[in-house]
Amino acid sequence: MSIDTNSPGRPRAVVLLSGGLDSATLLALAHERGFACHALSFSYGQRHGAETLAAAQVADALGAVELRVMNLAGLGDLGGSALTDRTIAVPEAPSAGIPVTYVPARNTVFLALALAWAEVLGARDLFIGVNAVDYSGYPDCRTGFIAAFERTANLATKAGVEGGQFHIHAPLIALGKADIVREGLRLGVDYALTVSCYQADPHGRACGRCDSCRLRAEGFRAAGVPDPTRYA
Amino acid sequence: MSIDTNSPGRPRAVVLLSGGLDSATLLALAHERGFACHALSFSYGQRHGAETLAAAQVADALGAVELRVMNLAGLGDLGGSALTDRTIAVPEAPSAGIPVTYVPARNTVFLALALAWAEVLGARDLFIGVNAVDYSGYPDCRTGFIAAFERTANLATKAGVEGGQFHIHAPLIALGKADIVREGLRLGVDYALTVSCYQADPHGRACGRCDSCRLRAEGFRAAGVPDPTRYA
Repeated sequence: MSIDTNSPGRPRAVVLLSGGLDSATLLALAHERGFACHALSFSYGQRHGAETLAAAQVADALGAVELRVMNLAGLGDLGGSALTDRTIAVPEAPSAGIPVTYVPARNTVFLALALAWAEVLGARDLFIGVNAVDYSGYPDCRTGFIAAFERTANLATKAGVEGGQFHIHAPLIALGKADIVREGLRLGVDYALTVSCYQADPHGRACGRCDSCRLRAEGFRAAGVPDPTRYA
Repeated sequence: MSIDTNSPGRPRAVVLLSGGLDSATLLALAHERGFACHALSFSYGQRHGAETLAAAQVADALGAVELRVMNLAGLGDLGGSALTDRTIAVPEAPSAGIPVTYVPARNTVFLALALAWAEVLGARDLFIGVNAVDYSGYPDCRTGFIAAFERTANLATKAGVEGGQFHIHAPLIALGKADIVREGLRLGVDYALTVSCYQADPHGRACGRCDSCRLRAEGFRAAGVPDPTRYA
């Protein structure tokens, strides 16, 4: 396991960071658990760049060693989701089943690239902010998927073969949104920096109507704390 | 399962195509098995562009419906391999263990993106030309890895949840290089179009000294057929 020279005594971890509420809380948790956090964001043609700006501010505020923003336009170019295909509208009312905001195989792709970076860094710990309770019905946010990916990672890699086991940490997976908010506030996360909206405007202001906005607002309400979200 | 409108009666498959000997044989096999083949290549900072040109010629010659070349420079930028980091020399003699040409988590990343495309296309079949016999010791070329990825894919995706099972086909995995050559010749593959060399020159001419060149040349010799490789 590599120790970060900028953070002596801390083992390295790769933390997937979108700049939203969940992943900001995740980064704060990984830092609290003693890791030198290397944050990874992707630019994949999602509807707004405000997400990437938020990720940079969050990474800075929560003590990440660095933030890498990887261009993954090829994933967005495949389409198949309201987040990457402008001809598919972002829904503003709850729907049954897996919603059209699902991006095909997104978390598999994100974890695969996080794994590649972890192997180069000598990190054995990956953090992902998936959440199976107050979530939008995405299959790649479930415990079974995370366990299967971890097993794959340990078969796929030089590090895995040589005995260094990878761990995929998904500490938010069993928490409700209100619990996540409380945990983040305890850790000092400034949620005003984060952007969760699927269709935020260029200034990062939220629509207040999409699935992601609804779940987030309900989280603040249920936690009994003011909602610092900037709405358009 | 989606049927390709350009290839009536044929179910779609995504075929990972590097432009080398193995993946050309793979594409010919997938086509023989009745699939409408959507070939996928990656530009990830590997040492030469001749590979991508070879992939285009092979896709055309072997009846692929289309070739998509996805920019994945972010994977190469991570470094950690002689194929993507020019400060690490490509070895020209066999080495013990996993060689420095191993690209961290490469096949996991490639399969994840192939899975994303398959889901958008409505394909349930993915083909990868990994080979566990005359191979270079890469962990992500083994049967256990392929099985683990297939399981992950079926947990990760909307298609998997809704009952359409993905199959990861690795038909070359148990074949020696000579067997692969014989199979390709039976299928009419023109190996003169393919480039396997880790450090081919800009015209696609092979070095004849790297691991990949050695395995390829031994394959032609053992199969008892002329080696059509263009050497520098």
